[in-house]
Amino acid sequence: MPQGTLADIQGSYIIAQTPFDDRGAVDLTSIDSLADFYVGHGANGFVVLGVSGEGGKLTPDEAQSVTARFIARAGGRPVIVGVSNPGTAQLALLAKQAMDQGAAGVMIAPPGGLRTEEDLLGYFSTVFGMIGDVPTVLQDFPGSTGVWMSVSSILKLIESHPQIQVVKEEDLPSLGKITRLREGGGRRVAILTGNNGLYLPQELGRGIDGPMAGFSHPEMLSGVWRLHSKGRVEEAHDLFDCYLPLLNYEAQGFWGVAARKEVMRRRGAIRHATMRMPGPKLGPQHMSELDLLVRRVERAVANRR
Amino acid sequence: MPQGTLADIQGSYIIAQTPFDDRGAVDLTSIDSLADFYVGHGANGFVVLGVSGEGGKLTPDEAQSVTARFIARAGGRPVIVGVSNPGTAQLALLAKQAMDQGAAGVMIAPPGGLRTEEDLLGYFSTVFGMIGDVPTVLQDFPGSTGVWMSVSSILKLIESHPQIQVVKEEDLPSLGKITRLREGGGRRVAILTGNNGLYLPQELGRGIDGPMAGFSHPEMLSGVWRLHSKGRVEEAHDLFDCYLPLLNYEAQGFWGVAARKEVMRRRGAIRHATMRMPGPKLGPQHMSELDLLVRRVERAVANRR
Amino acid sequence: MPQGTLADIQGSYIIAQTPFDDRGAVDLTSIDSLADFYVGHGANGFVVLGVSGEGGKLTPDEAQSVTARFIARAGGRPVIVGVSNPGTAQLALLAKQAMDQGAAGVMIAPPGGLRTEEDLLGYFSTVFGMIGDVPTVLQDFPGSTGVWMSVSSILKLIESHPQIQVVKEEDLPSLGKITRLREGGGRRVAILTGNNGLYLPQELGRGIDGPMAGFSHPEMLSGVWRLHSKGRVEEAHDLFDCYLPLLNYEAQGFWGVAARKEVMRRRGAIRHATMRMPGPKLGPQHMSELDLLVRRVERAVANRR
Amino acid sequence: MPQGTLADIQGSYIIAQTPFDDRGAVDLTSIDSLADFYVGHGANGFVVLGVSGEGGKLTPDEAQSVTARFIARAGGRPVIVGVSNPGTAQLALLAKQAMDQGAAGVMIAPPGGLRTEEDLLGYFSTVFGMIGDVPTVLQDFPGSTGVWMSVSSILKLIESHPQIQVVKEEDLPSLGKITRLREGGGRRVAILTGNNGLYLPQELGRGIDGPMAGFSHPEMLSGVWRLHSKGRVEEAHDLFDCYLPLLNYEAQGFWGVAARKEVMRRRGAIRHATMRMPGPKLGPQHMSELDLLVRRVERAVANRR
Repeated sequence: MPQGTLADIQGSYIIAQTPFDDRGAVDLTSIDSLADFYVGHGANGFVVLGVSGEGGKLTPDEAQSVTARFIARAGGRPVIVGVSNPGTAQLALLAKQAMDQGAAGVMIAPPGGLRTEEDLLGYFSTVFGMIGDVPTVLQDFPGSTGVWMSVSSILKLIESHPQIQVVKEEDLPSLGKITRLREGGGRRVAILTGNNGLYLPQELGRGIDGPMAGFSHPEMLSGVWRLHSKGRVEEAHDLFDCYLPLLNYEAQGFWGVAARKEVMRRRGAIRHATMRMPGPKLGPQHMSELDLLVRRVERAVANRR
Repeated sequence: MPQGTLADIQGSYIIAQTPFDDRGAVDLTSIDSLADFYVGHGANGFVVLGVSGEGGKLTPDEAQSVTARFIARAGGRPVIVGVSNPGTAQLALLAKQAMDQGAAGVMIAPPGGLRTEEDLLGYFSTVFGMIGDVPTVLQDFPGSTGVWMSVSSILKLIESHPQIQVVKEEDLPSLGKITRLREGGGRRVAILTGNNGLYLPQELGRGIDGPMAGFSHPEMLSGVWRLHSKGRVEEAHDLFDCYLPLLNYEAQGFWGVAARKEVMRRRGAIRHATMRMPGPKLGPQHMSELDLLVRRVERAVANRR
Repeated sequence: MPQGTLADIQGSYIIAQTPFDDRGAVDLTSIDSLADFYVGHGANGFVVLGVSGEGGKLTPDEAQSVTARFIARAGGRPVIVGVSNPGTAQLALLAKQAMDQGAAGVMIAPPGGLRTEEDLLGYFSTVFGMIGDVPTVLQDFPGSTGVWMSVSSILKLIESHPQIQVVKEEDLPSLGKITRLREGGGRRVAILTGNNGLYLPQELGRGIDGPMAGFSHPEMLSGVWRLHSKGRVEEAHDLFDCYLPLLNYEAQGFWGVAARKEVMRRRGAIRHATMRMPGPKLGPQHMSELDLLVRRVERAVANRR
Repeated sequence: MPQGTLADIQGSYIIAQTPFDDRGAVDLTSIDSLADFYVGHGANGFVVLGVSGEGGKLTPDEAQSVTARFIARAGGRPVIVGVSNPGTAQLALLAKQAMDQGAAGVMIAPPGGLRTEEDLLGYFSTVFGMIGDVPTVLQDFPGSTGVWMSVSSILKLIESHPQIQVVKEEDLPSLGKITRLREGGGRRVAILTGNNGLYLPQELGRGIDGPMAGFSHPEMLSGVWRLHSKGRVEEAHDLFDCYLPLLNYEAQGFWGVAARKEVMRRRGAIRHATMRMPGPKLGPQHMSELDLLVRRVERAVANRR
């Protein structure tokens, strides 16, 4: 895949879950139904092996199998592979394997322990020197990494490294940072946002190119983006607000991911809601809370039509 | 005030903002209108000098003035004073001053740097040995303090220290922890919750006694609590969902507090939306985002009636 | 005191302990003997209310008493007062009080929560706008504050704020940073170093102006500085090495401070070794370890002569 | 290897460096000379792929090659393999591979993000359920992991999991914790200590079974242990103090490791001092500092004889 492809992406890029069976083994069969589910609900592409995709719980061999299965089922849609790793040699190896498998690019967040802009710029010089000409999503997610990147640092990285074609902006709050990145000039990159999509309508208003997030109802992510991109801002908010109570519930860290997998199991996207150990297990009260929230969301969506 | 009063509290306890004028000086006059605004929208009591109340930005003298003014205007409603401090001598002094001024109790979160349960239990033994018989809200807010308290640690603290009459539970997620605290047995304490009220309907379902949070529309906090306590759960959710888009916007850390103060200024609760330096300043896009969200919330609330 | 005085300081600036009596009250009488002890062992000045001086455990009134007593006994030697505070209003008040009492300047470390260079520069613009023309020691101590300042950030701060006349450099490792600060050009400031003096000989070789540290044997700090400044580098190392086993023991965080106070009590500098709660208490094995180390240090120093 | 072997280990267990050539490739040839160097200077066993061994910078294949080479050259001495990993599936795979290669056991530190004792106990239940009957060194290194384990938590882990045969205690300070672990009763495990050996004489006095650390002069580690175990405590201190100035220099995090590798290169243990990127590179002043320290250490050791 020629460099430069990702800088123009728009739309809804799903942070894909990894399905496991009841015993915690990777459930490759469910990847097929899951990929179909995502595409059927408007996904323009996938990110696999992300944080909420439990990528860090897989062995390297499992990670390769999951990547291959998603790429095979994506029907040509771009699949981006998370390759962040504390070791740069391993990161470079993962990036090479992903691209050899047919990935559209990789996603990289800086490892913990980088303290200053010098550390940050030095780190990415090393990394991009090693991985070469690989389209890259730079992930700005300080709540997870503990590494804070200022807008001017991000702009310097974009300037120095043509591999960076997308910024996944999920600092909290993201809004001011998006505006300043867009006003910062320099080479154009796509900006997509995470944080479970909690600020998607405002982020679209600030000029992003779409969500890069996970949700049990991916039709919300694609729908809000589509309405907003057509200038139908109030309708985008209307749709978003229907789902917000459940979205908010799914934003409870890994407990939220457990809820998300349970709802996706109910919707037939995956066969099991299992999270690999160590991970949370929902209790009966969580189930009742989900029952109520899902019923209310479905009613709100139905009333809107 | 005799010990034991706080263990039975129920209802909506507002985390009060501290008003500042355009130059950043404490605006005592606005405290009167602010207290009236809270009471008029259903507050059963106040917490002053909390984190989002910018308590940490005040000098000790300012803190005393703010406390005195709120107590004077509270019409006998309980006022709880945040006295967390890295120094226990200063904490004890603040607690004494607060009680001398007529506070109903104090709120204490553990300071950063406590690592193990031993550290935690030792810290509170020292603190309660110093402050004596003062009704206390134990604040469990690891996202801010960096100190994680397990349910069994909290139960041990309640067992050892009769001063603890309320737990403010704002770990994330709070839900499982609330259930386990309620099932833990031992002496009964009130449980109230913060985190901007983002999970209030579920937390009420888990058995809390009310919110202890801040919001530009405190009528939501009191209204959801009231409906839920009458068993009108669906209506509680309906009301909550009307406000959730704005509540979510106000949950962006200190940027959210800035938004909250701006909305409260528009509603006439305070004369200035100023946050004391160092603090965020909203730009024109934030203002537009607030315009849209407030308009939509007002419409949703009106339609609901 | 006219601005600019501190930029030329050289020698040994002691991070002073705060003496407490057996019940944990400030022992003002011991401050007199302590100040004399420091001066008698070569101190050129003092820093009071630092981290290892337990400054954070004092009430504001106690802090003022301690400061006044040290200044009164310092015989005109510069006394620098630690005024770091999470609230800038309180910091400004503390700085004003210190200067009114006759301090030579203040020491400020950035508060936790500053993430990027922008945050850092913004914070100090606010602070220096508030405190005005006060000679300041900028403390670079990321291990305690959690705030990392790059060399270029520190140079920008020096450039922007003439109040900064000294950098206390105690990042770990300090050596490369000292060299780069000295090579960075711009206005000349004094550089002194902390970290319990563990790298003092190397730091002197990198061009610092002296130690700013605490030790139970302050004659080592002043002696090593004096020898090194006369070009007697090997002798400076010889002296340093005599004390290093005890210095290393005193470098165990607050446990090391407890050991330091115990040794200083034995030497007659203070009447009680008490640390204010919450703080460590040495057990009998600590006492045996200190017995052995002190005896060995005294023998090594005697053999050297 | 039958379970139980490691609980009785005594002596000096070296945290082995990983040698790289000038281009950053693993230098397997140097592993032979390095293992011989360690054994020739008194090592009783090895730990490979630890933090200061740059284990985190290797790919899984490289890690296996390094392990195999060390085991082949160790002459039957126990080789313990660091297998800490954020993913438990990968950790279990690494543990199995290590034992299949002939390792004597594995070393595991808890991953970041465990907050309470419940988290901690739950994590190790999962891990030991997965790896089965593998002799394990439990590494207590909060300064690196960010996970604090109280003495009672460690004792509970020992009680529950017979696989734990050694505790590597490198909390700071370690001294009180060692005493309390030894007094805690329960099943006997070996206790070895790290932190670059900075408190080795005191730790031996508290009852540990030897050092588990790295140093450019491993004869110090084995010598101090041997003298102390024969009751020649003053001589153990004498020997330790000869090396302390260099030991202290090597305790500067990864900069210290760079210094260590340089000194070991000079001593012929490895062919290159290279650290794999991202890692520090020593400048000319570091070299001069090392020249002086090494010369002084050699003189002190010679004078002692």
